[in-house]
Amino acid sequence: MESRFDVRNDRDLTMLVDFYELTMGNSYLEEGVGDQIVYFDMYFRRVPDGGGYCIMAGVDQLIEYLEDLRFTEDDVNYLRSTGQFSEKFLDYLAHFKFSCDVWAIPEGYPVFPNEPLVTVRGPAIQAQLLETMVLVTINHQTLIATKASRICRVAGNRSVMEFGSRRAQGYDGAIYGARAAVIGGCSATANTLAGMMFDIPVSGTMAHSWVQLYDSELEAFRAWSRAYPDQCLVLIDTYNVLKSGLPNAIKVFKELRDKGHEPLGIRIDSGDITYLTKKVRKALDEAGFPKAIIVISNSLDEHIIKDVLAEGAQINSFGVGERLITARSEPVFGGVYKLVAIEKEGNVIPRIKISENEEKITNPGFKKIYRIYEKGADKAIADLICDSEEVIDESKPLTIFDPVYTWKKKTLKNYKAELLRKQIFKTGELCYESPSVVEIRNFAKAQVERQWAEVLRFENPHNYYVDLSPKVWNAKFELLNKYSEEFSGK
Amino acid sequence: MESRFDVRNDRDLTMLVDFYELTMGNSYLEEGVGDQIVYFDMYFRRVPDGGGYCIMAGVDQLIEYLEDLRFTEDDVNYLRSTGQFSEKFLDYLAHFKFSCDVWAIPEGYPVFPNEPLVTVRGPAIQAQLLETMVLVTINHQTLIATKASRICRVAGNRSVMEFGSRRAQGYDGAIYGARAAVIGGCSATANTLAGMMFDIPVSGTMAHSWVQLYDSELEAFRAWSRAYPDQCLVLIDTYNVLKSGLPNAIKVFKELRDKGHEPLGIRIDSGDITYLTKKVRKALDEAGFPKAIIVISNSLDEHIIKDVLAEGAQINSFGVGERLITARSEPVFGGVYKLVAIEKEGNVIPRIKISENEEKITNPGFKKIYRIYEKGADKAIADLICDSEEVIDESKPLTIFDPVYTWKKKTLKNYKAELLRKQIFKTGELCYESPSVVEIRNFAKAQVERQWAEVLRFENPHNYYVDLSPKVWNAKFELLNKYSEEFSGK
Repeated sequence: MESRFDVRNDRDLTMLVDFYELTMGNSYLEEGVGDQIVYFDMYFRRVPDGGGYCIMAGVDQLIEYLEDLRFTEDDVNYLRSTGQFSEKFLDYLAHFKFSCDVWAIPEGYPVFPNEPLVTVRGPAIQAQLLETMVLVTINHQTLIATKASRICRVAGNRSVMEFGSRRAQGYDGAIYGARAAVIGGCSATANTLAGMMFDIPVSGTMAHSWVQLYDSELEAFRAWSRAYPDQCLVLIDTYNVLKSGLPNAIKVFKELRDKGHEPLGIRIDSGDITYLTKKVRKALDEAGFPKAIIVISNSLDEHIIKDVLAEGAQINSFGVGERLITARSEPVFGGVYKLVAIEKEGNVIPRIKISENEEKITNPGFKKIYRIYEKGADKAIADLICDSEEVIDESKPLTIFDPVYTWKKKTLKNYKAELLRKQIFKTGELCYESPSVVEIRNFAKAQVERQWAEVLRFENPHNYYVDLSPKVWNAKFELLNKYSEEFSGK
Repeated sequence: MESRFDVRNDRDLTMLVDFYELTMGNSYLEEGVGDQIVYFDMYFRRVPDGGGYCIMAGVDQLIEYLEDLRFTEDDVNYLRSTGQFSEKFLDYLAHFKFSCDVWAIPEGYPVFPNEPLVTVRGPAIQAQLLETMVLVTINHQTLIATKASRICRVAGNRSVMEFGSRRAQGYDGAIYGARAAVIGGCSATANTLAGMMFDIPVSGTMAHSWVQLYDSELEAFRAWSRAYPDQCLVLIDTYNVLKSGLPNAIKVFKELRDKGHEPLGIRIDSGDITYLTKKVRKALDEAGFPKAIIVISNSLDEHIIKDVLAEGAQINSFGVGERLITARSEPVFGGVYKLVAIEKEGNVIPRIKISENEEKITNPGFKKIYRIYEKGADKAIADLICDSEEVIDESKPLTIFDPVYTWKKKTLKNYKAELLRKQIFKTGELCYESPSVVEIRNFAKAQVERQWAEVLRFENPHNYYVDLSPKVWNAKFELLNKYSEEFSGK
């Protein structure tokens, strides 16, 4: 989605690659395997915060990067200056033309461990080169969209505004973090640039500094009510909420009403939320302002929101900052990008990465994902990872099984099987159009509602099934057995 | 510092402001107080991870932003479309000219809670408008530089390479995170763009995918040794470190030596570091490769590095990823930007923000910072926050006191007092030149060595003294008493 406004944020991120992607590219070329067709999968292994699902995000930025992928003369000169590359390779880069196929799960879908969110097929040099940008883009936005989804679900029908730019990890942490927060369910952001770039609502009123600028708080509130008579929301904790901020706000609200305007409400940014909001709500109601809203914004996260709502705190809207924009409780999304197959004479040859840590073993081969829904309820039952050539015939029963405890089986009859991924690039050409961010948010909300409540549970959720088709399972265990036999004699 | 190469990363971040900075600006102008001269301090309250110091970073990016601060026609049109701003204010933005004074502690200095890292003096609209960018810039880079300093100090004379781009929070998380990591002590980064932008060393060799591409690991290592005969470092854990990777590496190293090249070493990215590196070191030594280095890179942080070194792990170099680039253990740097004074008829009038949480009360007034050193040892004793007009006469004894437990006093005789901050903008004009990133890293190392060991201690460090001069202390407590009396009757 292009912005309606010129935001002068058209950076070239071609050089945002881990250096080894380039040294490997150099070696691929030297060894004559640069054009070898390979397949890479991007996937993650665990949902952050012990949650039941993640929300896919970042595809639109991945598209922007891939569309812009080219090496300038300065890029090539810089690489030459490191002394690590052959002129042949530098010449290859200077004439680089992206030609990969790329598949991705569209933004907004709930996604689960071990399924390939993105698959790249193409010449080894190219597919390898994308590793860092595929990962940083999808890892970051999926992390924040997932956190936002947790927070917004706890807030229920109260709005959640993203307020965290100042504590984000860098400018893009703020910009794309705001985008992802809205995908995850936030109603607005305080980040003006994100509002402009992604056409999402922006919000914000006053800071403590507004109050401090004036000789008295009352004077500060009055000045504000003159500037924004119909959207007057004042921050009441600069000096003392109950003894100063609240009575001054009510005084100004009455003056506003006398002039024919209705106040919007108040914001509190410190102190005990439950105690203060109950007092404030009662006072506002008694003073004749039952529609004045209460906004809270002090180091909030899903746990605090859950607790204060359970305690009966009176809140209409939350401003959530640093704990959302950095996903503070678990700030790393551990997506990986692994080679899963190569092509030889047109045949796909699965490849595996083995690890003593079983969960780090890859699922080999070129695959696709079906999401299986129960027909009547329209609720998701499982995701089934199939070989790219397999097709599910919905008219026939489908038996799925646990990939570890394989005797645990389930046969489905009344189901729908929907392909989860879309091709976004075909031989280097874009073949997908991203929806707007607000459309993605609405889509995400609808898709989350297609999950059973036990998967959405806040703590100890049910593990959603991500199963392998018999064909994929067999390919994996053949490779595992091969290497196990090879090393067992040593 | 400008890069020698054109990196096409010249973004305009003017619109990266919290929306309330603009609504306040609009109201300042409407109320005729837009040109009121104000002072804002940026400071933090707590060192992350329970450490004893932070490393200042991000000033150069703050400068870039301030130099580029202007509103385009599209910016103004976007703001108009929100319906929140008067034409008068939009016209002000269209003709915006930055005219503030800015002071900052230079990058690389150890910094401590409650001292103003940055101070902005200027018209209310302008000084307010900088809030988000001052915070996100200094918060992010200081967070990562501080984390890197902890990790590098634990690693001692072993090099630490920054490997985290793929798990960073957005592109700038990776780019400026790498910059900050080098300021904190890292020897290199894997982020090629950061290397190009900041003239810092880049490093990296091969990934598991290189090994997987070939039919056998031995074949993969041989191919690598042909491409990089004099810098051959191979990743030995794709299938099995001791049964496959290590013997294959030694075989290829011997072949290399037969051809007149010496191998660089091996990297391990999984498994038990202590056990594996001891085995690998012994095998490499016995095979005649005592100079082959061992690089480790698996979810490292300062705690793991400390433990495995204590266990006798044999490591020459660390690649540190996600736990450094996100400061995973504490990913939020809580810097704040607070109004501390206004000017009336040329006089500076201190302003305060009160809170029930004592540590959230601001230090009012326009201030400067002296760092006091013991003359003989050249070790820092304390930082003293003075009124901007105070001057310390080193020839006279200096009494400092604890700002809370004021009876705790210390009189210094043989000391040096160095001003910690530099003016970086004068009436909107840049008046400071940033050193290179490598120069800043060397400066940081030297400045850290000017701290006593007890401040640098890894756990439970001594709290470095950040004291207030009697003049600043008195101004603060006068204001506190004034408000306390005002509310005590209510």
